[in-house]
Amino acid sequence: MQQTICALATGAGGAVAIVRLSGPQACSLLCQLTRRSAAPEPRKQTLCTIYDGADPLDRCLVTYFQAPHSFTGEDVVEFALHASPYVKGRLLELLCAHGATPAKRGEFSQRAFLNGKMDLVEAQGLCDLIASGNKAAHKLAMDSLDGKLSNRVEEIKKRLSELLAQIEVRLDDVDEEMTPLSDEFIRQEITAVLEHIKALADTFSVGKYIKDGLKTAIVGAPNSGKSSLLNALVGFDRAIVSDQSGTTRDTVEETLEINGQKIILTDTAGIRDHALDPAEKEGMRRSHRAMETADLILFVLDASRPLTPEEQALWQDIRRQNKRTVIVWNKTDLPSARPSLEHEEAYARAEVSCKTGAGFDALKKLLTADLTEAKTADGLMISNLRHYEALLRAQTELESALIRLQAQAGGEIYAEHLRGALRYLQDLIGEVTPDDVLGIIFSKFCMGK
Amino acid sequence: MQQTICALATGAGGAVAIVRLSGPQACSLLCQLTRRSAAPEPRKQTLCTIYDGADPLDRCLVTYFQAPHSFTGEDVVEFALHASPYVKGRLLELLCAHGATPAKRGEFSQRAFLNGKMDLVEAQGLCDLIASGNKAAHKLAMDSLDGKLSNRVEEIKKRLSELLAQIEVRLDDVDEEMTPLSDEFIRQEITAVLEHIKALADTFSVGKYIKDGLKTAIVGAPNSGKSSLLNALVGFDRAIVSDQSGTTRDTVEETLEINGQKIILTDTAGIRDHALDPAEKEGMRRSHRAMETADLILFVLDASRPLTPEEQALWQDIRRQNKRTVIVWNKTDLPSARPSLEHEEAYARAEVSCKTGAGFDALKKLLTADLTEAKTADGLMISNLRHYEALLRAQTELESALIRLQAQAGGEIYAEHLRGALRYLQDLIGEVTPDDVLGIIFSKFCMGK
Repeated sequence: MQQTICALATGAGGAVAIVRLSGPQACSLLCQLTRRSAAPEPRKQTLCTIYDGADPLDRCLVTYFQAPHSFTGEDVVEFALHASPYVKGRLLELLCAHGATPAKRGEFSQRAFLNGKMDLVEAQGLCDLIASGNKAAHKLAMDSLDGKLSNRVEEIKKRLSELLAQIEVRLDDVDEEMTPLSDEFIRQEITAVLEHIKALADTFSVGKYIKDGLKTAIVGAPNSGKSSLLNALVGFDRAIVSDQSGTTRDTVEETLEINGQKIILTDTAGIRDHALDPAEKEGMRRSHRAMETADLILFVLDASRPLTPEEQALWQDIRRQNKRTVIVWNKTDLPSARPSLEHEEAYARAEVSCKTGAGFDALKKLLTADLTEAKTADGLMISNLRHYEALLRAQTELESALIRLQAQAGGEIYAEHLRGALRYLQDLIGEVTPDDVLGIIFSKFCMGK
Repeated sequence: MQQTICALATGAGGAVAIVRLSGPQACSLLCQLTRRSAAPEPRKQTLCTIYDGADPLDRCLVTYFQAPHSFTGEDVVEFALHASPYVKGRLLELLCAHGATPAKRGEFSQRAFLNGKMDLVEAQGLCDLIASGNKAAHKLAMDSLDGKLSNRVEEIKKRLSELLAQIEVRLDDVDEEMTPLSDEFIRQEITAVLEHIKALADTFSVGKYIKDGLKTAIVGAPNSGKSSLLNALVGFDRAIVSDQSGTTRDTVEETLEINGQKIILTDTAGIRDHALDPAEKEGMRRSHRAMETADLILFVLDASRPLTPEEQALWQDIRRQNKRTVIVWNKTDLPSARPSLEHEEAYARAEVSCKTGAGFDALKKLLTADLTEAKTADGLMISNLRHYEALLRAQTELESALIRLQAQAGGEIYAEHLRGALRYLQDLIGEVTPDDVLGIIFSKFCMGK
């Protein structure tokens, strides 16, 4: 028989804590601990006393969700306790003493998935929603949780399945009674499916930044104003700075929200105790490393003086990175000696003064420009590596099918590639995903969900 | 019109977060944000979508508690959200934008009190319940929240009121038509009430330790094994050690639970960097200070060697403290040279070996002996300083009444003292407590309750 699982669903502290129970024993555990002869009316918050032997442990509101009308699809009971460390811990002890098992991470969601309450994309949306700390990440997660992303995949799957069905029925038609499909029709259909998959896969380049934040390296010569730029950006948005900022050994990192997007700024100039090192060399080394792991480079230059040879060298290094780069001309409050940079016209540029705050609105727009422009018409995006990889694999199979078709390889050959593409789409939404893979996916969810 | 207040009721993190709303606008705010034309059926957890303008913010279970059948006695709405930092913050913003106000600490409880849902002792029990981290503190809080403590105060109040009524009706009886009360009857009644108040007030000496923990100073000469004793006590109960341990400048403090009681152990020997100080003098100074703030003193002695002059001096100092003291003879695994201590027979004693663990069960029983023996027959205790002071003041008034009665001072005089005593009892349960005092009391509650 399926185990009945229990877990604390709320965080530490607070006034109210929720302990959640799911499985066939949920109802009898509720009755035993509250000394009721039957479960309360489903979904009704009912005042109950939980007993610990002869003594009351808590008087609290209890809700019974009757299978299949619950989050997991099983019988679910929720206790809304007074959030005492003792009461929470003791109730979980009592539940386990009466036969429940502590839930693993994501186990409630995994059961919801296994009982057909949500597909894998929706479950991932739920996980991402709980983690979402800003408006953009929240929208991505909601589109996933709401099924919009799953529907898009279903549409693609359906068109591919229909094509495959038409091909397969003719493969079985040994007497050749059916009108054959034209190669041109098959090519058109595969190409159309491929375009839809590509369009969705392409959104990952933006979606992943929205979910995980855009890693931005601030590089430049000493005294060009890197730290001032960081402080100015952080300062303006201090109210919404997350708690994820911190100082690593070599760099200062600050997480902030700009135009509703998560930006992780890395400044290589925040550390003072390297002052005794051969300065330029060490600075270059650190800038280089920061750029390698960054998604976006901010190159800070002092607009009030000519370029130094080191800055010329750094610029060559930046261009070799071949990454999104914004050139920031700083100190525009001083008389301009605005030098020019080789090929700078090919890059986004901003002119700012950290002293007066001038130019920061334009800079912030540049920082988030690519993130606020959704790549698909309806704003649907993927942000999950597993989804991206499934789409890429499906894409590769379809491209192979097109090549085989072109080479007149015969229906059996390209049909096999179409089947492969279909399997990757089915895997994306969890239709054919093996149990051990599911276990890994759900183990990344949070406790109590 | 009364404001509608909102607050997050759960702690940080977790999978589920509850936002609570109380006041006349609760229902209309629910309808506006979920686009419903009417509130859902009371107490029924109903799946709703919360909208942020055109976009869905969350799909969550919402419960409406119709006044007066709610915690506060007002209309209450609870949103059980996905615990995303963005979703929680945004919902509170939306509620405030639509007219709600952020709740102050304890404001939900204060409204419950003002609407007659609970008296002040019950409200305090609620606050203590949420803070309770062990079984004993939990029981105290439950007795208070359940009304057991209030009922006891009501009984005492009733007996006093009835006596006062009989006295007052005779004071108004100018024609002396009623049988006068005998002084003996009045004395007996006042004494009976006084005994009940004293019995309850006396429990504070234990109740406060149960709630706040017993501060225990470990003192002794260097090498007598103070640190080993601390480590042994902490080690045996490591699994339930709280997170409140920490190191202060001069002392090591560890909070642990022994026999379901909270014990705060202070060791004056944990600091090594005073080794260069004139050692004995500094040690004595620190031991002395630790003893002054302690509720219980553990005097650790090495049973395998004679007493030193310093230990003799420390023992005199301990005895002058006039506090609960347990003498701990340590190192009983070594051949005994058990010295004797002046008047040691008057103190609790334990023989232990930190090396083998021998004797620790007995020592732990001694540590918690006074705490596990409830002072009233039914285990009712007070643990709140405000309650204790109200009882002491009532006691003083009753004692004054007895003195006036003895001195034949006349009914008007001692009746005034009885009225004073009654007022203190009324203040205890919040019947006559001024608003500003209420504000202070509730401001110590937790957020969202």
